[in-house]
Amino acid sequence: MTSDYSHHFSIKNLPYGVASSTTRIGPQCATRLNNTVVFLDSLQENGVFNSVTGLPSGIFKSTTLNDFAALPKTLHTQVREALQLALQNGVENLPAGSTADISEVQMHLPVSIPAYTDFCCSKQHNINAGRAILGHESLPPSFYHTPIAYNGRASTIVVSGTPVHRPRGHFVDRTLTSHKEVIYAPTRALDYELELGVVIGAPLPLGQGLNAKDADAHIFGLVLLNDWSARDIQSLEMIPLGPLNGKNFATTISPWIVTLEALNSFRAEEPEPQSSSIPPYLQDWGAFNYDIQLKVELETSGGKTVLGETNAKELYWSLRQMCTHLTSTGCNLHTGEILGTGTVSGSTEGSYGCLLEVTQGGKVKASLAGNGERVYLVDGDVVTMSALAGEGVGFGECSGQVLPAKDL
Amino acid sequence: MTSDYSHHFSIKNLPYGVASSTTRIGPQCATRLNNTVVFLDSLQENGVFNSVTGLPSGIFKSTTLNDFAALPKTLHTQVREALQLALQNGVENLPAGSTADISEVQMHLPVSIPAYTDFCCSKQHNINAGRAILGHESLPPSFYHTPIAYNGRASTIVVSGTPVHRPRGHFVDRTLTSHKEVIYAPTRALDYELELGVVIGAPLPLGQGLNAKDADAHIFGLVLLNDWSARDIQSLEMIPLGPLNGKNFATTISPWIVTLEALNSFRAEEPEPQSSSIPPYLQDWGAFNYDIQLKVELETSGGKTVLGETNAKELYWSLRQMCTHLTSTGCNLHTGEILGTGTVSGSTEGSYGCLLEVTQGGKVKASLAGNGERVYLVDGDVVTMSALAGEGVGFGECSGQVLPAKDL
Repeated sequence: MTSDYSHHFSIKNLPYGVASSTTRIGPQCATRLNNTVVFLDSLQENGVFNSVTGLPSGIFKSTTLNDFAALPKTLHTQVREALQLALQNGVENLPAGSTADISEVQMHLPVSIPAYTDFCCSKQHNINAGRAILGHESLPPSFYHTPIAYNGRASTIVVSGTPVHRPRGHFVDRTLTSHKEVIYAPTRALDYELELGVVIGAPLPLGQGLNAKDADAHIFGLVLLNDWSARDIQSLEMIPLGPLNGKNFATTISPWIVTLEALNSFRAEEPEPQSSSIPPYLQDWGAFNYDIQLKVELETSGGKTVLGETNAKELYWSLRQMCTHLTSTGCNLHTGEILGTGTVSGSTEGSYGCLLEVTQGGKVKASLAGNGERVYLVDGDVVTMSALAGEGVGFGECSGQVLPAKDL
Repeated sequence: MTSDYSHHFSIKNLPYGVASSTTRIGPQCATRLNNTVVFLDSLQENGVFNSVTGLPSGIFKSTTLNDFAALPKTLHTQVREALQLALQNGVENLPAGSTADISEVQMHLPVSIPAYTDFCCSKQHNINAGRAILGHESLPPSFYHTPIAYNGRASTIVVSGTPVHRPRGHFVDRTLTSHKEVIYAPTRALDYELELGVVIGAPLPLGQGLNAKDADAHIFGLVLLNDWSARDIQSLEMIPLGPLNGKNFATTISPWIVTLEALNSFRAEEPEPQSSSIPPYLQDWGAFNYDIQLKVELETSGGKTVLGETNAKELYWSLRQMCTHLTSTGCNLHTGEILGTGTVSGSTEGSYGCLLEVTQGGKVKASLAGNGERVYLVDGDVVTMSALAGEGVGFGECSGQVLPAKDL
């Protein structure tokens, strides 16, 4: 049963995605108003964007949003204004064939993704995960100096709705009590991670650098992101080079990219003061975070259970600071690349963004609807994340079902 | 002063690269015989590849080798045979305008690189680096179970000859004796890493997996690779997520991709038996490694100094095992992506592949020509790597000069 996210997509939102339908077989760029998908090329052909000087003709015919995302922010603003004007009286008067009901379309990856960097910006996630793994509170040594991150695997990012096969890998067999043995088997500790992802718009050249205060010019918008993680594989492999196979099998993103303009009225202050000794390029205090309610639900044969509700305004490091830290060595940014926030978590029960935290590293079972319980995910489980910034502005959902391990 | 690598490029080699010249302003696909660059589109237009059924016309006009690399191995073999026939009497009888002297061309990145994974396959590098950093021998916990690796930054891979600016970053100021302070400054510990890189040819779909014995079908060829590393930045940031900004500022590769066919007569056995408990998909014993002599030289105002000479046959894990480990979760492979071996090192003085090992983590200075010495690289230093498999088959060089930090 699909949830109705109509109320996430008012005229105040107008996100961007890539959709196909039985009448538009090739994927192309679209926006969404309530439950209606609007194909942007149709609008352009009918003159809706005639006022937008410099918008290349046919740009929305593309199978990805990359060409559009790469344009300067001023053009994005003008396109948004033209869209709000065209859609102010609903979708009834739009050109024939330019719309489809959300139930009639297939959504695709909104961008071609040349890189994926996953941060770890939530202080509380670091604290909770440290407690679950190490048994005591512990922050990484550089946590207060810079946002920490690792390079992820961009090629296995999939769009919401794509099933995810349980990966095989190497891990320590915890069922043995007499000795420690590393086995190769389907993971026994499959987890989700509730995150937001920044989608880069205008590229940044090699060697240029970026002040945090200027980083919005390079952020096309945000998506929900599930950084699926095999905790047992990750645990063995990540000393000392970080996660690889424990996370490279799949990352799921929501299909609609919500723009910073739509989120602008939901800005929030930083949750606590940052060190005054961080260098000027990283300093960006004031309207720092976004107030976005995040939720993760697990659907099993017993029904749906909300496993975590938290808020993006709790992030210790901001989206802009993520972008600027990555580029502070001179590293470039490419259009379409994604920067994940890392798991967003709160400090109280019910506010955790992954099962590692919910179950305290497997020590406590999570109670589910229908008298079920979980330590980690089992085959058939459906993990669904959703996010709402405020009235009429949300992300819809980011969902994926766990399928059994394949014989490779 | 440029070295003469003519003897690396006999008719037994015939590597692939992308070159431009004053008469061919747009970069296009080429091979090299001794010191002559041969533009492949010219040969195709003149019928040299007419015998190769299924080779798309105009494929070598491309600015990258990706389209060609993605073809099945059988086509690569036929193109190689046609090239060896056409070039058996040298380059004098080739069509007018199809050649240029190596001194007259500019080399470009040979492939568009959608991903970069860097392994750590040399057991001796792990031992040497562990000793330099921790003061005692220590291998990562999963070292004998799988090749270990991290996702690198593909977007900052540059071709040999591109200068590299010293990056800025966060690290512990070691000049202070009274207390530990994290500062943001140009790195004081800039290092090179002597590696080989696998360039992926035929792609592997998501969810398919790959046995090590079959992995050659997906390896287009090899390049030399310098994984520039800022040891101080890396050291602070890599707990627990691995290297990011300590390595994301630049990685240099050699311009010529040497094919596995050219290297086939230089195969070597594994240096020591691997555990018999590794799973079947990873098992690949016999003609395991390649006997390729590797060298790294440092050029300073005082002259050139060889800092390390070692051999790729010492790698504990093979190139094929790297490919298969990465894909054992179902992860896909894309044409043009690069998998680095990690620093290749031997066990004796003079055989180390990075300054961290040469200087034992900064405790011993390296002696240079002209009475110079180094702990880590200084601005102006030129690092040049080269590799020779045997008579007539080599990689040429992979070189880069260190420039001062830029104000970002």
